[in-house]
Amino acid sequence: MAKRIAVLGTGVVGKAIAAKLVETGYDVIIGTRDVAKTESNRERTAMGGPPFSDWHKLHQKVKLETLREAARSGELIFVCTNGAVTLEAIQLAGPDNFDGKTVIDVSNPLDFSRGMPPSLLPGLSNTNSLSEEIQKSLPRAHVVKTLNIVNFEIMVNPKKAGGDPTMFVAGNNPQAKGDATALLKEFGWTDIIDLGDISGARGMEMLLPIWLRTWGATKTGYFGFKVVR
Amino acid sequence: MAKRIAVLGTGVVGKAIAAKLVETGYDVIIGTRDVAKTESNRERTAMGGPPFSDWHKLHQKVKLETLREAARSGELIFVCTNGAVTLEAIQLAGPDNFDGKTVIDVSNPLDFSRGMPPSLLPGLSNTNSLSEEIQKSLPRAHVVKTLNIVNFEIMVNPKKAGGDPTMFVAGNNPQAKGDATALLKEFGWTDIIDLGDISGARGMEMLLPIWLRTWGATKTGYFGFKVVR
Repeated sequence: MAKRIAVLGTGVVGKAIAAKLVETGYDVIIGTRDVAKTESNRERTAMGGPPFSDWHKLHQKVKLETLREAARSGELIFVCTNGAVTLEAIQLAGPDNFDGKTVIDVSNPLDFSRGMPPSLLPGLSNTNSLSEEIQKSLPRAHVVKTLNIVNFEIMVNPKKAGGDPTMFVAGNNPQAKGDATALLKEFGWTDIIDLGDISGARGMEMLLPIWLRTWGATKTGYFGFKVVR
Repeated sequence: MAKRIAVLGTGVVGKAIAAKLVETGYDVIIGTRDVAKTESNRERTAMGGPPFSDWHKLHQKVKLETLREAARSGELIFVCTNGAVTLEAIQLAGPDNFDGKTVIDVSNPLDFSRGMPPSLLPGLSNTNSLSEEIQKSLPRAHVVKTLNIVNFEIMVNPKKAGGDPTMFVAGNNPQAKGDATALLKEFGWTDIIDLGDISGARGMEMLLPIWLRTWGATKTGYFGFKVVR
């Protein structure tokens, strides 16, 4: 199992995963397009969270590097970028830097251009998915889709959902799914269902519309989906 | 609340709903394209179930009529047809026969033409849904989407999922959602979330891909989705 993990993306998801990985004992490099810009950015997040630099002061063990440096040094890579720019970020990070590695894709192909709640990006649902496109961009990496179906706090603390929610994994490589499953267990997930090959990501990404509507109906993002059986 | 309920469709879903409604005390008319053909059909169902006529002998209180007769006499109408022909079936039933009525849409826009597992029909997911198209076809009816996210036995017996699964409703008319919710409670559902207007059906129909994959992974259709919160 990897000791040094790269997390691509400095949004709420990337920060939550990076912090949890450090807490769990991994060396963590978080990757961004422009290190100086990210470090000096004083804007609060869209949801009112602290600027990256404030967060970084509290999580100094997380190294901040370029996407390329992070992808190169990570033995395992989390993709936590905004889904609309994920494929571009992977190009910036250098596809060769993912070769032979387990790549855990947490991103969602959300399309905010048609108003709220967002839909999924054209061409990336139903008969395709963002994870499948990532796998096509990285033919020698082992992409696993997981965690995208809950909010960032539940990702790393599933008990916060108030129950024992189910998490899914999908990917073509059993070893990579084993890596992802081991990490999920370290995050606190106990009910994990393997949906098969990477095309199982379709169903996971297509959960977003009902996730968003349930959020609107229940007025809380602190929930998860449990497969009761 | 309606006393006389029409169920359009003689497949496993229509039969399960019709039987449960009779058991619950309603007068039930099940609608089909061709009454004589349905009555004389000796073929078993795709899943190996008995032919309609055998089922009908055990459920003689259910009246079998044409789609048009059923829609005309039902005070409330369940749409349980194959999603690929639902809009056509509604035209055959006569859109005027739905005016002012609560129409509970249980159908799924599954596309089996691209192999298994099925995807959703082109143009009927993400930024649209089958329920929204039904509502457009029936502008003076009150369409409610529900029950499409579980198998036919769980629909009318949610406890069979082995837990207390969540059911969703979506529709534009609060009174019609009230009718649907009352029926859901009679079927045994206790955790019901209102997703808002009929566009909430998108998320419910987009649950099918993960439902199908979960079925494949767990080797059982006896499950439901619980929103743990």
